Amino acid sequence: MRVVAPPPNLARRRALADGALRVLAASGVHGFSHRAVDAAADLPPGTAANYFASRDALLGAAAERVLELHEEDMAAAHDLIVGPLDREGLIGLLAMSLEMSVKLHRDRYLAVYELTLEATRRPALRQTFDAIRNAAVEFTCDQHRALGLDTSRQDVETLITLFGGALFTLITGQAGEPDAATCGALARTMVAGIES
Amino acid sequence: MRVVAPPPNLARRRALADGALRVLAASGVHGFSHRAVDAAADLPPGTAANYFASRDALLGAAAERVLELHEEDMAAAHDLIVGPLDREGLIGLLAMSLEMSVKLHRDRYLAVYELTLEATRRPALRQTFDAIRNAAVEFTCDQHRALGLDTSRQDVETLITLFGGALFTLITGQAGEPDAATCGALARTMVAGIES
Repeated sequence: MRVVAPPPNLARRRALADGALRVLAASGVHGFSHRAVDAAADLPPGTAANYFASRDALLGAAAERVLELHEEDMAAAHDLIVGPLDREGLIGLLAMSLEMSVKLHRDRYLAVYELTLEATRRPALRQTFDAIRNAAVEFTCDQHRALGLDTSRQDVETLITLFGGALFTLITGQAGEPDAATCGALARTMVAGIES
Repeated sequence: MRVVAPPPNLARRRALADGALRVLAASGVHGFSHRAVDAAADLPPGTAANYFASRDALLGAAAERVLELHEEDMAAAHDLIVGPLDREGLIGLLAMSLEMSVKLHRDRYLAVYELTLEATRRPALRQTFDAIRNAAVEFTCDQHRALGLDTSRQDVETLITLFGGALFTLITGQAGEPDAATCGALARTMVAGIES
């Protein structure tokens, strides 16, 4: 018997995770399967099963991919910012981030919400999510510090709860067509709140 | 040929809608069927199909039932409040409402989130949701006025977006174990925000 090591191809793992996100956004957990992910990633049948043995592993890879994409976006936004950020700068950053997430990354976040609900029923996915949540809080605390903001950890957590929640409402279309003014008003409300 | 009128039994329609909410909370859209709803409502097979011919109709009835339950809860809370409400009173009301929703109505809101995501893929359900959203805004504006608050319609909409979003984050367990302090801090942040 030969023992075959798992394929180490990181690019392919990413392509499969991206395919998983597309399946979740388009069809929900209802339509999620290894076979559907192969098709969405334009890879031969069996590829997803070769890289991710279980449904939990494949769902977890999709969740981790979202954190990776989010951190890439935030790092890119960070690079555009010159000098320390004041209150109005933070409002602008949050408003822009809300609007971009709604307009450019709707499918990514629809997939996240599918995963979030599935995690209430799957302990393994729940653990992955808890780790991602902690990483996101750490990452955001670091970013605020690097931007010259002295936001406390508790305020960062409140901001993440309000931001993430508002994004859910906007992306699922419960607040009408989201525009820059709506995103600006929400960002201003959040920042005013943590300063009170 | 006899034409048989649809069964007018409102109590049974409610029982089926409540059963539909339990199925959605426990199994998601993935496990949703007329047959599963019959079982969850402890009614004979075929009952749900008799009252709600299509999947859209049954999902829509579940969504409308949530608005009915929410309005009953809010009216009951309203009856407990004596005299006009000030800023601290509004914060307390929102904090209590957040905490009660998380602790007492977790299943109801998990079902709402399943319906919310399904509505992004089903136009008929989308229309039901838009009507429910408008009704909730009207209802909340009326409640604020009756409580002596002069919250503008736009601020009510912002509050609903932030409140609904925070509830999603708390109920799906993304913010750790929610307690009275967390709910109070979130409510205070929202109210400070709309006053800024």
